[in-house]
Amino acid sequence: MRATVMYGAGDVRIENVPDPQIVAPGDALLTVSRACICGSDLWPYKAMEPSDTGRVMGHEAIGVVESIGSEVRTIKRGDVAVMPFAYSDGVCEFCREGLNTSCLHGGFFGTPELPGAQAEAVRVPLADGTLFVLPVAEDDTLMSSLLTLSDVMGTGHHAALTARVGPGKTAAVIGDGAVGLCGVIAARRLGAEQIIIMGHHADRIALATEFGATDVVRERGDEAVERVRELTNGLGAHSVLECVGTEQAMLTAVNITRAGGAVGRVGVPHYEAIPASETAFYNNIIVGGGPAPVRAYIDELLPDVLNGDIEPGRVFDRVVGLDGVPDGYRAMNDRASIKVMVQP
Amino acid sequence: MRATVMYGAGDVRIENVPDPQIVAPGDALLTVSRACICGSDLWPYKAMEPSDTGRVMGHEAIGVVESIGSEVRTIKRGDVAVMPFAYSDGVCEFCREGLNTSCLHGGFFGTPELPGAQAEAVRVPLADGTLFVLPVAEDDTLMSSLLTLSDVMGTGHHAALTARVGPGKTAAVIGDGAVGLCGVIAARRLGAEQIIIMGHHADRIALATEFGATDVVRERGDEAVERVRELTNGLGAHSVLECVGTEQAMLTAVNITRAGGAVGRVGVPHYEAIPASETAFYNNIIVGGGPAPVRAYIDELLPDVLNGDIEPGRVFDRVVGLDGVPDGYRAMNDRASIKVMVQP
Repeated sequence: MRATVMYGAGDVRIENVPDPQIVAPGDALLTVSRACICGSDLWPYKAMEPSDTGRVMGHEAIGVVESIGSEVRTIKRGDVAVMPFAYSDGVCEFCREGLNTSCLHGGFFGTPELPGAQAEAVRVPLADGTLFVLPVAEDDTLMSSLLTLSDVMGTGHHAALTARVGPGKTAAVIGDGAVGLCGVIAARRLGAEQIIIMGHHADRIALATEFGATDVVRERGDEAVERVRELTNGLGAHSVLECVGTEQAMLTAVNITRAGGAVGRVGVPHYEAIPASETAFYNNIIVGGGPAPVRAYIDELLPDVLNGDIEPGRVFDRVVGLDGVPDGYRAMNDRASIKVMVQP
Repeated sequence: MRATVMYGAGDVRIENVPDPQIVAPGDALLTVSRACICGSDLWPYKAMEPSDTGRVMGHEAIGVVESIGSEVRTIKRGDVAVMPFAYSDGVCEFCREGLNTSCLHGGFFGTPELPGAQAEAVRVPLADGTLFVLPVAEDDTLMSSLLTLSDVMGTGHHAALTARVGPGKTAAVIGDGAVGLCGVIAARRLGAEQIIIMGHHADRIALATEFGATDVVRERGDEAVERVRELTNGLGAHSVLECVGTEQAMLTAVNITRAGGAVGRVGVPHYEAIPASETAFYNNIIVGGGPAPVRAYIDELLPDVLNGDIEPGRVFDRVVGLDGVPDGYRAMNDRASIKVMVQP
């Protein structure tokens, strides 16, 4: 089959690779209907060490179940299912607590251990726990929004939950990428009264405003901090969604959080230590977040997607076939595209 | 009056200083019945730059109200009251949220701005909001436990709350000082099933066990992490109370926290950044805490002290008059005493 293989920074190729096979009795094989390129894929795209074997990329997908292992019980051939970016058994104590990303038997797609979904097909371990069967056909018009349940929408929701967004509160969203935009959707959905989007790209800001952002902060660093304080009676935001992952973004996050407030960080952290320890301490600021247990959130988010209350699929501003994936990486890396959908 | 003045590291003197005066109409003057030396006083005791003017120390007290300013409404002359380590107006939006340590008009005792309570008397700003009037006489036998409501017991409670201790959970307490010991009391009070005390001093460990600790970890660093994992089925503790304030303690805290768990840090942080950012992230660990809003906690904790359910006053293992305060600092700094009570 054809798949997206990354061999090093900036080196993404579409190649023929061996078809995936059922390896364990809990596996399913999925024909990929839709996949996408993630902001987190841009980290290796910028910095991956050259590799002879390469890595099949992609951790977000919707697909059709083609075959199942002998111990799969609930997933059936022909099911249309969301594949969250982490696989999980659904029954261990972490999964039962809703933290599927810490599943005792789980792991991640698009890693050296498990080929990813920017491909014609993908092997899904622990299919019963991992896949979420959708009540729609694979050509449904909602497909783009449903696809975001595999990662970005759930990740924005996780940021908002961890940042303790609630009715009447002020939320600030750092980063106007697809996750930040989904963070705006999530903050509004959870009742935030004021939603400040912090970013620099006109098209993304415009979308954020349509999603519910009430204020825009285009400044960076200290000026951004000052501007958020101006917008919040000098106090800062109750809830800060950190959707970037740099040390500077995290520093800004702590510095704009209201005393007693919380930072939900979902940008993969590219820093050794969380800055502004003393500021966080003296203001009793909570810092939380991590890989979003999106599998656990689908139950809650799916109805809102199905009835059109939220439209996270609008973050996709480009659709490509597999041949267009290398260009899709370039476009996202150049900020020429918010998020690229892949139709293999 | 006589007061404790610190002039630099290791230089604590008992001196005559001007009597405190009503400065603002919301002030009260308190004759100090009991004060104490705090673990946090040991930081300047180790490192304070030499000062010509010195600093009147002490931020924990119970006293009798001697006089009040013209705008004090609820506090009366003769009241026996707890003085929390922070003063607060009790009416601003942070105080109404229970975060008195971020009061918009508040501040701290024993600072360059406001002389402290290791003295015969102390000026209390914003007396109506700050002081908590006790339903007992100043010679009550419960006085030592009541005194802990001014800081250590409330601080241990804050660590436990921030670490999300709850029924059936495993809590680990880093540090066997007075705050750590009160953290054990708080963790038990909030229903923790397993309470691991991490410390090195036989007398303190013994007290922790009486307070409800179920396991003891005497190792340090990586060995301590390994030992906690052994005690928790390899998973770590749901709730970690960081009651030290060093970078090493914080690193240990993150490394022993179960995925999805929380660290409540109340040791004044002596590190620039919170270590183990990636470990915290990938395990969705929450890091919170800060100066405890002990004023807000007295309502909840007082009944348990009055009926004897908790006995945090047992952390005091030495009682001195003002003349004994310099020796008290030495004893606490040498770990020869857990916590010193001062009867001026």
